[in-house]
Amino acid sequence: MTHPTAPLDGPGAVVGDLDETGLLELITRRLPHASHTLLGPGDDAAVVAAPDGRVVVTTDVLVEDHHFRRVWSSGADVGWRAAMQNLADVAAMGARPTGLVVALVLPAATPVGWVTAVADGLAQACGPHDVGVVGGDLSAGERIVVAVTAFGDLAGHPPVRRDGARPGDVVVLAGGLGRSAAGLALLEAARREDGAPDLEALDDDPCVHAYRRPDPPLTAGARAALAGATSLLDVSDGLVRDAGRLAAASGVVVDLDSAALVGDHDALAPTADALGARAWDWVLGGGEDHALLGTFPPDAAVPEDFRRIGTVHPADDGAPGVRVDGSPAPVAGWDHFGPAGGASRR
Amino acid sequence: MTHPTAPLDGPGAVVGDLDETGLLELITRRLPHASHTLLGPGDDAAVVAAPDGRVVVTTDVLVEDHHFRRVWSSGADVGWRAAMQNLADVAAMGARPTGLVVALVLPAATPVGWVTAVADGLAQACGPHDVGVVGGDLSAGERIVVAVTAFGDLAGHPPVRRDGARPGDVVVLAGGLGRSAAGLALLEAARREDGAPDLEALDDDPCVHAYRRPDPPLTAGARAALAGATSLLDVSDGLVRDAGRLAAASGVVVDLDSAALVGDHDALAPTADALGARAWDWVLGGGEDHALLGTFPPDAAVPEDFRRIGTVHPADDGAPGVRVDGSPAPVAGWDHFGPAGGASRR
Repeated sequence: MTHPTAPLDGPGAVVGDLDETGLLELITRRLPHASHTLLGPGDDAAVVAAPDGRVVVTTDVLVEDHHFRRVWSSGADVGWRAAMQNLADVAAMGARPTGLVVALVLPAATPVGWVTAVADGLAQACGPHDVGVVGGDLSAGERIVVAVTAFGDLAGHPPVRRDGARPGDVVVLAGGLGRSAAGLALLEAARREDGAPDLEALDDDPCVHAYRRPDPPLTAGARAALAGATSLLDVSDGLVRDAGRLAAASGVVVDLDSAALVGDHDALAPTADALGARAWDWVLGGGEDHALLGTFPPDAAVPEDFRRIGTVHPADDGAPGVRVDGSPAPVAGWDHFGPAGGASRR
Repeated sequence: MTHPTAPLDGPGAVVGDLDETGLLELITRRLPHASHTLLGPGDDAAVVAAPDGRVVVTTDVLVEDHHFRRVWSSGADVGWRAAMQNLADVAAMGARPTGLVVALVLPAATPVGWVTAVADGLAQACGPHDVGVVGGDLSAGERIVVAVTAFGDLAGHPPVRRDGARPGDVVVLAGGLGRSAAGLALLEAARREDGAPDLEALDDDPCVHAYRRPDPPLTAGARAALAGATSLLDVSDGLVRDAGRLAAASGVVVDLDSAALVGDHDALAPTADALGARAWDWVLGGGEDHALLGTFPPDAAVPEDFRRIGTVHPADDGAPGVRVDGSPAPVAGWDHFGPAGGASRR
């Protein structure tokens, strides 16, 4: 399948044209080296500084046509998102992200340019946060998979878990809600008369940008730990669903204040109206903005990254859960499996 | 797709019958907690002890029908191998493995019992080595993917890299060679007259066992670091290929002594003869036994895990490489891509 007239990393090249070493070289030269990177790619394993004596670790996988579509997201968008959703999980422990590794499963027909763009997107996401991409693995396969594992340092603080919310705590949020879901809805709806996607007009849409390039408040996590957050969670599957996890782990009721969320709603309302969708569904059920949801004692000095969106109540009747303005919240959010089979929104 | 008469984790259940939470619970309860596990599965991220202040990290992915076939390997075999090939990479830096995370991509039709068996295999591999399985991720997908990232602790020693071999060093090996490749060849050859696999008779074959359950010398890595190894590498793609990586990184010639390998050859010769294969191809080109290849200064007290298999010579003519008994070694080993497309032995 080699094209004698084109260089192996030229526009027409596909993964099957290169051997593993050649592809690795093209990727590795694009990856950022960071202050915590003690030994980067090229050996059996990498070495990352863990000055705290503990390391925070998390892994998250993106599968083509389940978590992204190449028609909607560039390789760089996919690399960015794969990095950010993992770094957000590190931040949600109150830690500072320090590095990540990435495993790529690639069909032979994958354009080499798409793969190098993934590396560029990883670098764009990680470089400004001084996060090193320290290693990886490549494999052939039938469908693109991007599996990232990220690391972080707690700087002497206990990890901020999801089970520490206490009655009387304030519920706070850093970052946006529903914008990524609105962006995905716009991409799904954008079709020309012949059914083909019509995406050019969406490139400047802020919601589409939020879907393609989520930008979670990564530094807010460590600040929350320092300020005494009692719990912290990455909102990846929707506010109500993830607040429900926090509530269940802590044995409390999380009561959300819709007045604190109406700004999120109103910002999305025109887009929702145009699509015949409901902005509240996106605000309460949309994931992948990777906002940080947390709780603080009522007298804590909450870092300014966070805004107050509710209150923690005791689960007096023994049933932890989520309410909105005191009423049970609608079930909304994302499950990767479920009786319908495969990834489904419900 | 729910079967009303069967429990959701019963014999007929498939992944699509469960939601993510239910499947996670079935997996998590099987995973080992280890002394370095400070916070296990269940939060945004896990916390692993890194007493050295540095953490060794490596990632490796297994793709169905590229790295394993369900007809040849049980779920537990796949879990075992996914763990061991990563732990071997940690050991090959001279570190002690401390923990791992695993991401699973699972088609909806995957039997739940196969998935829980993967967890059992991870536990069987990790538990005896006090390695915790501290977290993971689940995703739907079209083809099974098992992506593991493993961590390790250097206990105050510098990482043993692949670029430190010096002329005059002795070349040493801990672990077996070619047995996994022979086992794979046996599985590939075992077919009934109707073409279906005939595997029952192979269950007790030691080479098939080596293929299904590689057992690398995990503790030898840290011992080698302590004893002053100048280089160390996990043999995952074949002795000649991986020795070539060591030689290239170090800028030396690795001269292997066939007399030191003849025992490996002779042990495989009857199997090779029966299959019409060449035992030397397996010894020099077979990967996935995850032996540790290394070098020590000539006066070092080499740990008894290792046997001497060659000598390091200068690359006088500027060309690092591998020789066997002084002659250039045949190219052999494993590449995951290459012009043929997809995974191929060559």
